[in-house]
Amino acid sequence: MPDSSLFEVFPTPSDSPFVIEHIAEEFTSVCPMTGHPDFGVVTMRYMPRANVDNGVCIELKSLKLYYHSFRNEGSFFEAVTNTIRDDLVKVLNPLWLQIETNWKGRGGIRSVIRADHGDVPSHFLGR
Amino acid sequence: MPDSSLFEVFPTPSDSPFVIEHIAEEFTSVCPMTGHPDFGVVTMRYMPRANVDNGVCIELKSLKLYYHSFRNEGSFFEAVTNTIRDDLVKVLNPLWLQIETNWKGRGGIRSVIRADHGDVPSHFLGR
Amino acid sequence: MPDSSLFEVFPTPSDSPFVIEHIAEEFTSVCPMTGHPDFGVVTMRYMPRANVDNGVCIELKSLKLYYHSFRNEGSFFEAVTNTIRDDLVKVLNPLWLQIETNWKGRGGIRSVIRADHGDVPSHFLGR
Amino acid sequence: MPDSSLFEVFPTPSDSPFVIEHIAEEFTSVCPMTGHPDFGVVTMRYMPRANVDNGVCIELKSLKLYYHSFRNEGSFFEAVTNTIRDDLVKVLNPLWLQIETNWKGRGGIRSVIRADHGDVPSHFLGR
Amino acid sequence: MPDSSLFEVFPTPSDSPFVIEHIAEEFTSVCPMTGHPDFGVVTMRYMPRANVDNGVCIELKSLKLYYHSFRNEGSFFEAVTNTIRDDLVKVLNPLWLQIETNWKGRGGIRSVIRADHGDVPSHFLGR
Amino acid sequence: MPDSSLFEVFPTPSDSPFVIEHIAEEFTSVCPMTGHPDFGVVTMRYMPRANVDNGVCIELKSLKLYYHSFRNEGSFFEAVTNTIRDDLVKVLNPLWLQIETNWKGRGGIRSVIRADHGDVPSHFLGR
Amino acid sequence: MPDSSLFEVFPTPSDSPFVIEHIAEEFTSVCPMTGHPDFGVVTMRYMPRANVDNGVCIELKSLKLYYHSFRNEGSFFEAVTNTIRDDLVKVLNPLWLQIETNWKGRGGIRSVIRADHGDVPSHFLGR
Amino acid sequence: MPDSSLFEVFPTPSDSPFVIEHIAEEFTSVCPMTGHPDFGVVTMRYMPRANVDNGVCIELKSLKLYYHSFRNEGSFFEAVTNTIRDDLVKVLNPLWLQIETNWKGRGGIRSVIRADHGDVPSHFLGR
Amino acid sequence: MPDSSLFEVFPTPSDSPFVIEHIAEEFTSVCPMTGHPDFGVVTMRYMPRANVDNGVCIELKSLKLYYHSFRNEGSFFEAVTNTIRDDLVKVLNPLWLQIETNWKGRGGIRSVIRADHGDVPSHFLGR
Amino acid sequence: MPDSSLFEVFPTPSDSPFVIEHIAEEFTSVCPMTGHPDFGVVTMRYMPRANVDNGVCIELKSLKLYYHSFRNEGSFFEAVTNTIRDDLVKVLNPLWLQIETNWKGRGGIRSVIRADHGDVPSHFLGR
Repeated sequence: MPDSSLFEVFPTPSDSPFVIEHIAEEFTSVCPMTGHPDFGVVTMRYMPRANVDNGVCIELKSLKLYYHSFRNEGSFFEAVTNTIRDDLVKVLNPLWLQIETNWKGRGGIRSVIRADHGDVPSHFLGR
Repeated sequence: MPDSSLFEVFPTPSDSPFVIEHIAEEFTSVCPMTGHPDFGVVTMRYMPRANVDNGVCIELKSLKLYYHSFRNEGSFFEAVTNTIRDDLVKVLNPLWLQIETNWKGRGGIRSVIRADHGDVPSHFLGR
Repeated sequence: MPDSSLFEVFPTPSDSPFVIEHIAEEFTSVCPMTGHPDFGVVTMRYMPRANVDNGVCIELKSLKLYYHSFRNEGSFFEAVTNTIRDDLVKVLNPLWLQIETNWKGRGGIRSVIRADHGDVPSHFLGR
Repeated sequence: MPDSSLFEVFPTPSDSPFVIEHIAEEFTSVCPMTGHPDFGVVTMRYMPRANVDNGVCIELKSLKLYYHSFRNEGSFFEAVTNTIRDDLVKVLNPLWLQIETNWKGRGGIRSVIRADHGDVPSHFLGR
Repeated sequence: MPDSSLFEVFPTPSDSPFVIEHIAEEFTSVCPMTGHPDFGVVTMRYMPRANVDNGVCIELKSLKLYYHSFRNEGSFFEAVTNTIRDDLVKVLNPLWLQIETNWKGRGGIRSVIRADHGDVPSHFLGR
Repeated sequence: MPDSSLFEVFPTPSDSPFVIEHIAEEFTSVCPMTGHPDFGVVTMRYMPRANVDNGVCIELKSLKLYYHSFRNEGSFFEAVTNTIRDDLVKVLNPLWLQIETNWKGRGGIRSVIRADHGDVPSHFLGR
Repeated sequence: MPDSSLFEVFPTPSDSPFVIEHIAEEFTSVCPMTGHPDFGVVTMRYMPRANVDNGVCIELKSLKLYYHSFRNEGSFFEAVTNTIRDDLVKVLNPLWLQIETNWKGRGGIRSVIRADHGDVPSHFLGR
Repeated sequence: MPDSSLFEVFPTPSDSPFVIEHIAEEFTSVCPMTGHPDFGVVTMRYMPRANVDNGVCIELKSLKLYYHSFRNEGSFFEAVTNTIRDDLVKVLNPLWLQIETNWKGRGGIRSVIRADHGDVPSHFLGR
Repeated sequence: MPDSSLFEVFPTPSDSPFVIEHIAEEFTSVCPMTGHPDFGVVTMRYMPRANVDNGVCIELKSLKLYYHSFRNEGSFFEAVTNTIRDDLVKVLNPLWLQIETNWKGRGGIRSVIRADHGDVPSHFLGR
Repeated sequence: MPDSSLFEVFPTPSDSPFVIEHIAEEFTSVCPMTGHPDFGVVTMRYMPRANVDNGVCIELKSLKLYYHSFRNEGSFFEAVTNTIRDDLVKVLNPLWLQIETNWKGRGGIRSVIRADHGDVPSHFLGR
C-alpha cells in the first residue's frame, strides 16, 4: 500500500515564493483489473509556504521511497493521481500543488491525468 | 456505425476537480467520398463532475472499442470530431470536454479539428 | 492567378463552435523580383458559424486546387498571405480565420507571416 | 558600422493588421573585449501600420545587407539588440516591433536578449 | 563558498525595457548529504532598470566565475536557487529577475526549481 | 484477403541498376487471435532488373490498393511480412527485394520484421 | 524467478530466412545490492530456422509474461541479459539471436548490454 | 523540359580524391498521370577526377537552374532520378556519382529512389 | 589524481562473449592551461573474457567513484581518454575495450576522442 | 589569407593509436563570386602517429585562430576544404586525417564536402 509515513520534510530556505518541480520518470504500479504492470512519469509541482509561515519542502529520497511503495499496488490511473496529491498536501500544506501522471498506454491509448490543490500561481499559467 | 452503447463509466475517485486526457494514436475511418482509409490521432480531454455530484470517468477499454467502431465507417473529419464529442458528453455529463482529432493528411494537406463542450478550465489555457 | 472560384463549401455539421486547422506543407509560388521559386507551409485555422446560422466549411480538395493556382504566380510573402485570408473570408464568412505562412528562406533569412480575421477564440490563445 | 541607410521599404499590402517575422540564422559580429567572433540568430517580429495609415514593410534583401554590416563590428549582445530595434523602428514606424537575439554562447553560457517597441498584440502573447 | 564579490556590472545600453536571458549549461555543485556531485543548467532572466534610472547589466565573464565558485560547495537544490537569486538581486537591483535551475536527477527523479523577484513582465507570461 | 491481382507494373526506365524504396506509413490489419486492429509501417525496397532484361517497376497506386486489401484481414506480423514479399517477388522478378514491417506494439512490446529476397546490393549494406 | 516455462512458440511461416525484432520498452527488475528498482528496454532480435527445418517463432504474449516474471527479481544487468538470451535460445533453437538491454541509469551512468548467439546475418551488420 | 545545357563546371581544386554532396531541399515536378505537383529532396554525391586528369566540379548556381527546369515537367519518380544521374555524368565524367531523390508521398506512401554511376568509394560505404 | 585503486570487479556471468557499454553523462575535469572546468560524456565499451578464462566485469559504483576522482584534476582531453583506457585495461584484461569522450566545447569547438584496446568485435563495426 | 603559421602542436600522450575529432560549429568565409558570407561547420578527424614515432596533436586554441583567419577570405567550398586538409597534414603528419565541411546553403541547396588523407582506420568505417 502507498505509504505516506515515508515522507520527510525540511524547512523552506526562503520567505520569497518559489516553485519546485520533481519529475519521476520510472513510476510503476499494477492494473487492478488485469494484474498487468502500468508504467508512467509522475511530475509533482508545488509552491511551499514562506519560511516565516513554517513552510516545508519534501526531502527527495523520501519522495522516491513513497513512489516505490506503489510498485505492486493495484490502482486505476485516476485514483493513483488523486492519492498522491492528497498525501502530499497533507504533509506539505503548500500554497499550491499539482500532480501530473503521464502513462505509457494500454491498447493503443495513452493517458495524462492532472490534479491541482490551490490556484496555479499566475506567473506559471500556460506552462 | 459508431456505437456509443459500448461506453462504460465508473465513479470519479475525488471531489476535487481534475483533468483527464486520453490519447488514441491509432484511429482509422473511411473517406465518404473516395472510400479510401483515413488515419488520425484522437485526443480526449475532460474534467469530470465531483464524486458528490455523481461525476463519472470513462472506462478505458470501452473507449477503445467505441473508437474501433469507426473503422469501416464513412465520415468527414469535421463530422467524426463532433460525433465523438456529442456521444461522450451524453454519457459523462462533464464540467468540460474537448476532442482534438489530428489527421495524417490527404493530397499534401493534413488537418486538426478541435471541438469543446463547456469552458476550458482557467488553469488549462494555452496548453 | 490565384483562382478563388475553385472553392467549394459544405454546411458545418454542428451548432456548437469548433476550430478547424488545415496545414498545407507543399506550397510554392514565385518571387516577383527574381523569378526564383519560393516554398512554404500554409496553415489555415478557422471557426465556422453555427449550422443554424448557415455556417460552412471549406472542402479539402478545392482548397488544394486553390493553393496549386499560385504555382507560377509572382507575389511577395506578405501579399500571398493577405490574399489567401481575404479570399477565404469571402467564401466562408467565419467567426474567426487565421492564415500563417512559413517560408523556407532566401539569403539566410526565413519568414513567417500571420494574418487574422476576427478575434482569436479565447480558449485558443497562446497556441 | 551598422548602416541603417541600407534599409528599403514597400507599402504594406493590407489595411488589416498582420504580423511579420524574419529569422536570420547566420548573424555574426565581434566581441569588443576579446576581438573573437560572436554568432547568433536574430529574429525580428513586427506589425506594420495599415496601408491607409502609410504603413510600410521592410524589404528582405535590404534587411540582409544591414545585418551583414555588423560582421566586423565590435559590440556587446545587449547593445546589438537595442541598436537593431532602434534602427528598424525609425524606418518602419510600426504598431509593434520586437527583436530577439539568440547567441551561441561563450565560456559555457549562451544568451537570449529581447527588446520590444510598443505592446505585444494580444493574440500573440505566449508565443 | 559562492562568492558574490566576483560580480561586475555595466550600464544598460537603453532607456527602454528589455529582457536578458543567460543559460549556463555546465553548472555543478555537491550534495550536502552524500558528497556526490550534482549537475544542472542555471537559467537567469531579468529586466534591468532604464539607463536614466542607473540600470545595470551583469558582465558575462564575472557571472561565469561566480557559478564556478559553487563547484565544491555542498548545498541543496532549493538553497542554491534562492542564493543565486538573492545575490544577483543585490548587485543588479532589477525590475524583474528569475532563476531557474534544472537538475540532472538523482535516483530516477530530476528537479526544476524556479525563484522570481518582482513580477514577470506581462509580455513574457507563458514562456 | 490480400489481393495480388491488384498489382500493375511498368518497364524500368534504365539499364543501369538502381534502388527504389516505398514507405507506406498507414498500414493496418487485424490480430487473428483477439480481433483487435494492428497498425504498422511497411517499407518495400527493391532493385529492378535492367530494361534490356525486361525489368519492371511497381505502379504506386496499385501498391496502395494491395496494402488496403489487408485492412480487415486476420494475420500474424510474421505472416503479413512474408506474404507481401512473396506476392511482390512473383510480379516483379527483381534482382533484390526487401520488406520491413514496423508495428506499433501490443502489451508494451513493439515489433519489426524484415524479409529479403536475393542478396542486399553491396553498396546498400549497413543502411 | 524468471520463468521460462511461460514461453509458447508457433511454426515459422516461411522457408526463407527472415529477421524478427521485439522491443519491450517497459522492463523492470530489482538491484540485488540496494533493493532499488531498475528500469530498461529489452530488445530481442533473431532469425528462426526454416519451416522445413522445424523453425519456430516466439508467441508475443508469452514473451511479455516471461519479462514480467523479472519484476521483483534481484539481478545484475549483465546477468539479466545472459539469462534472457540463454532461455530464449533453448526454446527457439534459432539460426541467430541477440539480446540488447538498455538501462535507465544509476548514479549518473546508464548502461547497454548486448549478448549474441550465433553469427549476425551478414546483411544485418552495422545496424 | 529538363535543360542540361544550363550546367557550368570548374576545374577541381585538388589532385587528391574527395567527395562533394549537394542537397536540394526544394525540388518540384509534376505527376504525368494526374497533373498534380510532386515535391522532393534531391541529393547529389560525387567524386570528381583529379585536377591532373582534367576533373571538374559542378557550379552551384547552374545546378539550381537545372533543377528549376523540372518545375512544370511531367515525369515519374524513377525517370526523374535516372535523368538527373545521366545528365550529370555526361557533363562531369566523375569517378563516382549518386543521385538520391526523396519524395514527400502520395496516397500515404512516400518514396526514395537511388541511382549510382561507378562504385561507391570504399570509405563511404554504410553512410 | 585519478585513483584506479577505487575499481572493484566481479566475475563475468557467462562463457559466451558479450558487450557491455557504460555511459557516464556527468564527467568533469579541469583545463590544465586555464584552470576552467571541462564537461563531457565518457562512454566505456568492452567485451570481458569468458568466465572459464577468469573474465571480470567492472562494478558500476566503483566506476562512478573513479570518474569522480578527476573532478579537480587538470588534464588535456587526449590525456584523460588514454588514462581511463589504460587504467581499465589493467584491471579488466578484456578481449576488447574502447573509451570515447565527448566534450562540451571551448571557444566554439567541441571534441570527441576515441581510444581502443584490442580489435573491435566484427559484429560491432559501424555502430 | 588562411594563416597556417598559427598552428601549435604538442606530443601525443600515447603510443597506442587513437582518433581525435574537433567540430567547429561557427565557421564563416566569403563567397568569391558574390561577396556574401558563407557559414558552415568544419569537422576535423585524425589519428596521430605514436609518441615513439614523434606523433603530435593539434593545440585547440591555435586551431580556432586558424579557422578565424578565413573570416574575410573569398573561397569556394571545395577549395576551403582542400586547403584546410593540406595545411593540417603538413603540420601534423598524421596516420589519417579527414576534413568534412557542412555548409548552410545558398539558393535552396546545402553542401557537404569531405576530403581524406590516408586510409580511414578500419574500425572507423561506416561512422
